[in-house]
Amino acid sequence: MRGILYGVGVGPGDCKMLTLQAVEVLKMADVIAVPDTKGEKTAMKVVEEYIKDKEVVYCPMPMTRDSDLLEKSHGISCNLIEEQLLKGKNVAFITLGDPTIYSTYMNIQRIMDEKGYITRTIPGVTSFCASAGALNISLCDRGEALHIIPASYGETEELLDLKGTKVLMKSGKSLADIKVALKRKGLYQYSRMVECCGMENQRVYKSLDEVSDDSSYFSIIIVKDK
Amino acid sequence: MRGILYGVGVGPGDCKMLTLQAVEVLKMADVIAVPDTKGEKTAMKVVEEYIKDKEVVYCPMPMTRDSDLLEKSHGISCNLIEEQLLKGKNVAFITLGDPTIYSTYMNIQRIMDEKGYITRTIPGVTSFCASAGALNISLCDRGEALHIIPASYGETEELLDLKGTKVLMKSGKSLADIKVALKRKGLYQYSRMVECCGMENQRVYKSLDEVSDDSSYFSIIIVKDK
Repeated sequence: MRGILYGVGVGPGDCKMLTLQAVEVLKMADVIAVPDTKGEKTAMKVVEEYIKDKEVVYCPMPMTRDSDLLEKSHGISCNLIEEQLLKGKNVAFITLGDPTIYSTYMNIQRIMDEKGYITRTIPGVTSFCASAGALNISLCDRGEALHIIPASYGETEELLDLKGTKVLMKSGKSLADIKVALKRKGLYQYSRMVECCGMENQRVYKSLDEVSDDSSYFSIIIVKDK
Repeated sequence: MRGILYGVGVGPGDCKMLTLQAVEVLKMADVIAVPDTKGEKTAMKVVEEYIKDKEVVYCPMPMTRDSDLLEKSHGISCNLIEEQLLKGKNVAFITLGDPTIYSTYMNIQRIMDEKGYITRTIPGVTSFCASAGALNISLCDRGEALHIIPASYGETEELLDLKGTKVLMKSGKSLADIKVALKRKGLYQYSRMVECCGMENQRVYKSLDEVSDDSSYFSIIIVKDK
């Protein structure tokens, strides 16, 4: 019998934010698949207590926007995972945060679905919820909309005009530009940031004045309405 | 010494989606505070294993949009909680999903913060992530934005024009209108729904054709880009 592929959201980086279901699946799985990216070590650290002595498969996930290169590496990852599933082994692919939010896993899952394998998604706590929690502020209330914006892909500036709360994800590299845009829109003083949320080096900034322009890739800016 | 107030996200309704941290706080707390609303029984059911024999405080939370009435009931809830904190008891206020996403808890937390109490937010899995997980689809990938829209407050139709994935929250009562709007925008065939996500009566709809217009308050529609 073929194994099942699980995409396991491990939360933002604090092992206490794992769900009971994630722990159950990690303990049950025969093989742990890990995306070979910047987040890899963090994700592995979150789950290390539950995967001792388990086989680990590293899936190549280059940090690139080149579609051909991405497709090729997804193909390689899927072949590595397929090899395990065909042996009847259950595979848990770990991913930071939640698998449905900016995770490479969903590309893998789509391909494996098409190949006829059984796949399951195990939800996790998102970094933006955990960041708002660390700041002790609400993301959205009553009739307010919430906009999650990948801030390193352009178009951020026009989306800042939307009513409701704006969350700027992975804003690290673009931080200087984002600060300028927020000032231009009169939103700077309504903006807060969390760096490396849930990780050992988490930092919470109640004002962007305290933030240096070379902050981490794992930076989340929350912009409340005026 | 005064107690601490914890806002505990218990996830969408499946007790397996509780985080380890949520379980820890629930076990440690002296008093469980519960919003007295439609979600109450579900939230209580999720945590029942961990709160046996604990004191429970019911906080009045009328399902209304009347600001005065809401403010008054928040005041009553805060007084009930304050009474416990002054006795040195730690209070865990349970809330479905994540506390920072459309939760009444954040109103309580803001007031208790202003009163000088220590408050902590314990993140949870959101219903929209769990719904996408149940559908086995991605919410956002690479440069895609994600828009969370409270669908029963108007303005839904114009927000449907935004690029990226749209999540229509609590769309139960407005379902007939939403279907019409989605058809008009040519988005109907890109829409899926999950009803009562994570609960015993969860239903997953890969097409809105299967959905009756009198579906639950806990209905989440996910609209992918064309």
